[in-house]
Amino acid sequence: MNIDMIRAAAKRLDGHARRTPLLSSPFLDEMAGRKVFIKPECLQHTGSFKFRGGWSALSAMDPDQRAKGVIAYSSGNHAQGVALAAARHGTSSVIVMPSDAPQLKIDNTKALGAEVVLYDRDNEDRDEIGARVANERGLTLVKPFDDPQVIAGQGTCGLEIAQDANALGIENADVLVCCGGGGFTSGIALACEADAPTLRIRPVEPEGFDDAARSLRSGGIERNNQTSGNICDAIITAQPGDLTFPIMKRLCGPGLIITEHEALQAMAHAFLRLKVVAEPGGAAALAAALYRKDDINGDAVIVTISGGNVDPAQFKTALDTLA
Amino acid sequence: MNIDMIRAAAKRLDGHARRTPLLSSPFLDEMAGRKVFIKPECLQHTGSFKFRGGWSALSAMDPDQRAKGVIAYSSGNHAQGVALAAARHGTSSVIVMPSDAPQLKIDNTKALGAEVVLYDRDNEDRDEIGARVANERGLTLVKPFDDPQVIAGQGTCGLEIAQDANALGIENADVLVCCGGGGFTSGIALACEADAPTLRIRPVEPEGFDDAARSLRSGGIERNNQTSGNICDAIITAQPGDLTFPIMKRLCGPGLIITEHEALQAMAHAFLRLKVVAEPGGAAALAAALYRKDDINGDAVIVTISGGNVDPAQFKTALDTLA
Repeated sequence: MNIDMIRAAAKRLDGHARRTPLLSSPFLDEMAGRKVFIKPECLQHTGSFKFRGGWSALSAMDPDQRAKGVIAYSSGNHAQGVALAAARHGTSSVIVMPSDAPQLKIDNTKALGAEVVLYDRDNEDRDEIGARVANERGLTLVKPFDDPQVIAGQGTCGLEIAQDANALGIENADVLVCCGGGGFTSGIALACEADAPTLRIRPVEPEGFDDAARSLRSGGIERNNQTSGNICDAIITAQPGDLTFPIMKRLCGPGLIITEHEALQAMAHAFLRLKVVAEPGGAAALAAALYRKDDINGDAVIVTISGGNVDPAQFKTALDTLA
Repeated sequence: MNIDMIRAAAKRLDGHARRTPLLSSPFLDEMAGRKVFIKPECLQHTGSFKFRGGWSALSAMDPDQRAKGVIAYSSGNHAQGVALAAARHGTSSVIVMPSDAPQLKIDNTKALGAEVVLYDRDNEDRDEIGARVANERGLTLVKPFDDPQVIAGQGTCGLEIAQDANALGIENADVLVCCGGGGFTSGIALACEADAPTLRIRPVEPEGFDDAARSLRSGGIERNNQTSGNICDAIITAQPGDLTFPIMKRLCGPGLIITEHEALQAMAHAFLRLKVVAEPGGAAALAAALYRKDDINGDAVIVTISGGNVDPAQFKTALDTLA
């Protein structure tokens, strides 16, 4: 896993993934006490950065192998990313999703052409189910984060962040990344190490699901006690990956932790000030920028909005925090 | 008023206005019956394309004249665009706004450093008020649309549309523009005439406020019977401008007309499929793409989302159309 793989992925993604802009608002700068720059991956195809990793993995695959179809397990964003990448590569996809995933994510994944297999998040192991179905049908498994080509794809977002930060002269800044298994965080970290080495990459997680923060503190992989029961479903995983954690340990931290209510508030401010739709997990990094400013360093902060796949009812709840 | 003024404005805007991306969604393609490409100017600074015209006008002004301050009259988006452009040029601004403008727009305009003067939309004439205050205080009036440098600024959005359409090979397409006084429509039309001449520029207006559509049909400037009482406040004006209409007459049409409910539905689909926030007037063109597809020609359609400055309560009403 190295920067050359990310640059190669960027070539494969060119013309297929969206080059998202860097947004800002004087109102957010004032709230955060420093300049805030937002990388809105909610504007990426399928509404999250996951399309990058999905496209990277599919496009790197042997064509004969790819033609047999792919499988992925995901709470919803990786699902949609892989489903669209598969469809655009002219192949089929099976997506294993938790039965409590947001309905919008399940519906979208089906509409993008995937076959959806639901499982019980608390009593079944998605890795095991994914491996079994893959084996039975001869499908290639596209893991959500612990796969070099997936990390390389997510890292292309980091290349763009580095390029824009350099163009704007941003040097002394934390880069806050909404963090699940660490694919997005480690990919961005590798890209910035190469192209913008003064930036500091820091994972952001919801309270009670802070496996990355604890792992970075202890130096070894720590697990969460639970893997459901939080509105930030997109960034809830059992533990950092075997591939992603060593990268994070070398390049990232310390982690930041936000509450569910702060994620909802950040969604509302993204609506009001940036005119973008963030889902709760996708707003975690913005929440940290706005509500953990004393724990952040630098005269600027770069914030990822990792996804925007949120049901209308939950979005209304977020808007109500403005009242 | 010519293409060279638009190209000159683009140079002045470079590094100050945001280069917005072109978005798309397979779900919208299916609804519209053709490929839909979205130009989300809600992501522009201050949440609408109006920042382009404001910056263009301020940056073209004589520095001594600019230092005395500027004045604008606006229902809110031009207000914010001029207020921020003035602040970033280190000068002051007075904004004359209708007292029934959305509270968010009034608050934002003040927060961007402008002095706000409210007037009664039904019983007072904003042009007259603007001219009087400008005269009393020695301020330069920045008109909302009937000003060559404002049209040139809005036209920079058309240069970007043309560039992206050419890169994507889009030739046979209508370009739907949310239309008030015609500054955005005529600027885009001039830019596309030069750089993407096969594209057809068509204004979109709300029912009952279709002055542009009627003017294009009759060949002369037609007025609306009323200038308030529609949720698409951003694109309600009394009539096309003396500068904008001849350009529109030569290059644009026929106009399209949508209902308030369709604008709300389009806002909801922009939320769901594009992850961007559109205000009612800003969603008019998308509403036409989705609900007037038989009146549209071509295998693709390009849609402007002109602004996203909407109060949370109204946005919730839009989301409720999905239920």
